[in-house]
Amino acid sequence: MDNRLYIFDTTLRDGEQVPGCQLNTVEKIQVAKQLEMLGVDVIEAGFPISSPGDFNSVIEISKAVTWPTICALTRAVEKDIDCAAEALKYAKHKRIHTGVGTSDSHIQYKFRSTREKIIETAVRAVKYAKQYVEDVEFYAEDAGRTDNEYLARVVEAVIKAGATVVNIPDTTGYCLPHEYGAKIKYLMEHVDCIDKAIISTHCHNDLGMATANTLSGVINGARQVEVTINGIGERAGNTSLEEIVMITKCHPMLNIETNINTQKIYPTSRMISSLMNMPVQPNKAIVGRNAFAHSSGIHQDGVLKDVSTYEIMNPKDVGIDDNSIVLTARSGRAALKHRLSVLGIEVEVEKLNEIYEQFLRLADKKKEINDDDILMLAGADRSTNKGIKLEYLQVTTGLNIRSVASLGLRISGELFESAATGNGPVDAAIKALKQIIKRDMTLREFTIQAISKGSDDVGKVHMQVEYNDVNYYGFGANTDIVSASVEAYIDCINKFRD
Amino acid sequence: MDNRLYIFDTTLRDGEQVPGCQLNTVEKIQVAKQLEMLGVDVIEAGFPISSPGDFNSVIEISKAVTWPTICALTRAVEKDIDCAAEALKYAKHKRIHTGVGTSDSHIQYKFRSTREKIIETAVRAVKYAKQYVEDVEFYAEDAGRTDNEYLARVVEAVIKAGATVVNIPDTTGYCLPHEYGAKIKYLMEHVDCIDKAIISTHCHNDLGMATANTLSGVINGARQVEVTINGIGERAGNTSLEEIVMITKCHPMLNIETNINTQKIYPTSRMISSLMNMPVQPNKAIVGRNAFAHSSGIHQDGVLKDVSTYEIMNPKDVGIDDNSIVLTARSGRAALKHRLSVLGIEVEVEKLNEIYEQFLRLADKKKEINDDDILMLAGADRSTNKGIKLEYLQVTTGLNIRSVASLGLRISGELFESAATGNGPVDAAIKALKQIIKRDMTLREFTIQAISKGSDDVGKVHMQVEYNDVNYYGFGANTDIVSASVEAYIDCINKFRD
Repeated sequence: MDNRLYIFDTTLRDGEQVPGCQLNTVEKIQVAKQLEMLGVDVIEAGFPISSPGDFNSVIEISKAVTWPTICALTRAVEKDIDCAAEALKYAKHKRIHTGVGTSDSHIQYKFRSTREKIIETAVRAVKYAKQYVEDVEFYAEDAGRTDNEYLARVVEAVIKAGATVVNIPDTTGYCLPHEYGAKIKYLMEHVDCIDKAIISTHCHNDLGMATANTLSGVINGARQVEVTINGIGERAGNTSLEEIVMITKCHPMLNIETNINTQKIYPTSRMISSLMNMPVQPNKAIVGRNAFAHSSGIHQDGVLKDVSTYEIMNPKDVGIDDNSIVLTARSGRAALKHRLSVLGIEVEVEKLNEIYEQFLRLADKKKEINDDDILMLAGADRSTNKGIKLEYLQVTTGLNIRSVASLGLRISGELFESAATGNGPVDAAIKALKQIIKRDMTLREFTIQAISKGSDDVGKVHMQVEYNDVNYYGFGANTDIVSASVEAYIDCINKFRD
Repeated sequence: MDNRLYIFDTTLRDGEQVPGCQLNTVEKIQVAKQLEMLGVDVIEAGFPISSPGDFNSVIEISKAVTWPTICALTRAVEKDIDCAAEALKYAKHKRIHTGVGTSDSHIQYKFRSTREKIIETAVRAVKYAKQYVEDVEFYAEDAGRTDNEYLARVVEAVIKAGATVVNIPDTTGYCLPHEYGAKIKYLMEHVDCIDKAIISTHCHNDLGMATANTLSGVINGARQVEVTINGIGERAGNTSLEEIVMITKCHPMLNIETNINTQKIYPTSRMISSLMNMPVQPNKAIVGRNAFAHSSGIHQDGVLKDVSTYEIMNPKDVGIDDNSIVLTARSGRAALKHRLSVLGIEVEVEKLNEIYEQFLRLADKKKEINDDDILMLAGADRSTNKGIKLEYLQVTTGLNIRSVASLGLRISGELFESAATGNGPVDAAIKALKQIIKRDMTLREFTIQAISKGSDDVGKVHMQVEYNDVNYYGFGANTDIVSASVEAYIDCINKFRD
């Protein structure tokens, strides 16, 4: 059997649909280019029928990326497939990913259909997609809970209809590794034309088994894995790209090869975490802050005697480099451009000048600019104020005193001013703001992240404000955390659709 | 084979040794009581020889807890075992956990010994521990990389010497599930007296395989699993208690039973995360914020039609209850006591009064007091100011202005005052503080957490300050994040050992 394993990244589709992880098109292109540099084989770029934003992102990613196949998701519905084909028109390598639920639970409750009709639907969808593209992937939703005999019939039917890849998702994350592996083995042994297609895994982590199930699938014959960076995704998330790739790298006995440049893993992880506001827990395998930290005395002693006593991977293999360059106010445009490029961000001259200007302002406030700061600056255009702009803010706060804030907002050229007191500085500032912007809006979530090595570091604020039954996400970043909070609130307001 | 699986929790030993996760004795007792309520069989309470704090914690946990076995870790060294036995003297059920490295890498580089001598050391240690306690567990460190034939000889020798439990740790997290399972199977089939002891798993998560390896061990005959809450621990952490327990619960076909009351899982997870300052990532299996959140339109539709389409567990089974009571300023002592008890915290009248007073102060500032707030209040005694106390603080900050802070510190009854400017309010306040406390101290890490639903919520600040080459951890909590930051810094200073 061929030992080449194809990496199908669905960070921009399954990952991006998580609340709070939404990216704009510019950010999605940035991620897609990073994934290309990482060496993934397939980028699932979106679900075009689901929204104009997704449709447009698939178009723009198709234009921006050269080597990976661009994949668009659909239901087994003609208008979905038409829409996906249209969105993929600029892709150099294109794939339509269509499918339908095959478990009895899905057939009965979701589709109110029968097993035979579901096979007809599946075959019809694959044939319809084939009119547009050569490369068609079929997913048998909830395959994890579909009985193997029926699943084999579905798989055989869609391969005969022209499917090049068949995806066997454990949609609910229920399978255990030996069960999931046995399922893949059953298909390899019982589907006649199985050598005409690639079997793909798509595992969820509800019981912590996503990576183990994926590995078990690969050992039993699957040659594509659907994964996300940092394992993000629906509920407990998907299989982590970094885990499955490093398993194959650390275990040459598996005889599995991928196209991933593992040294790009850590920068990619940082970029996704930063853009999507999904913190990576310190003890996350491969990419967590503590993943390579030896804390106990016994271990430290062992590591000093011989690194192999406790270490199975070299941190450098995944791109973690303690000696990474730190930029300062004396760093020039070229150094900034180089650092951006290492972090996977290629910018035009105009954009570079813009980032450099912000960089100098920040470097003026804090001595050392690290990678997180640079990622923040590069992504800062999403918090560019439109409509409403914070002109000035002054807050007085402290212990055993009541916080007071005064601020000025510039709206369509005109300056509005207000002052208010509150419980804490952010509360006071937002009350002042609400005296000017009199809309019925409610703060739903408020996250401050300031994990850093100094008191003068940049604080990042993410907010979620509800208005007219819609949740809007806003972002702000400033060495002053109160200003960052107000900027995030204004960012939400600027996104309101009336 | 017996279907009872013993849960050995090492949150207080393997988990607690992670930098920043250190607990004081009062907090450890609180965790131990929660673990007892959760229904764990064994609590590994510490490594007594490693520090007076660990020694003392094992004594106090032994006194505080009734049902679970209390276990103390040692090396295969007599003085370690003497110390452990002494620390365990008040335990109703006690176990000594001793062992030595058995892989060639450990034997050659760490011990500069031979295979035969290591077996002698192991046997001697078990026999020595047996003089003190009936229940002796032996660990074969780095068993994951020890060849099976030699490992079987070690296991046989220690069981003959009296070991009641033999732990097969995958210390480096290198094993894959089929390999680890095969190792356990080999031992079950090749060790003569294997029925006289219980085989235990202890798996690390460096490749994301901890839970899968543990499960594979159980399927092949292990009947004790060493786990931590939220999977915390050295590097990428240990096997998550919640994952392995919910796997056995959701898969009755495995025919494995534990003593865990699963409805206590979520409150225990929250308590550990809060006390140890280890955020749980939103997509963590079972206990993450998104673990039961269905976001995509397709899934929501399915769930509305029938919950079984996408859900394999009921959130209530792990103690997640959206209807949890929220307390307000009108809530009485009884309501607070009840809520504390639900969260696993039993308090004496005096302590309750103290917490209630802080509760009222907080309720005065913010309308709704949630579980996180209550956990914070209950744990607040660790930030009680000793020596240096923040008397007042006033900060002015904002956009396009320079931050200025003035503060007063009470030191041994005397008031010291100072003022300074800085980049951002925290920077200004800490500069003012440093003008009074003139020590050579450096802020190493600074984390603000304010994940909440309102702008007036409590901000929690964790800091790490280096002084005389030692890192000190400090904590502060306040609706004013600047005050919380200064409190955390002062908390660090109050812990300095000169």
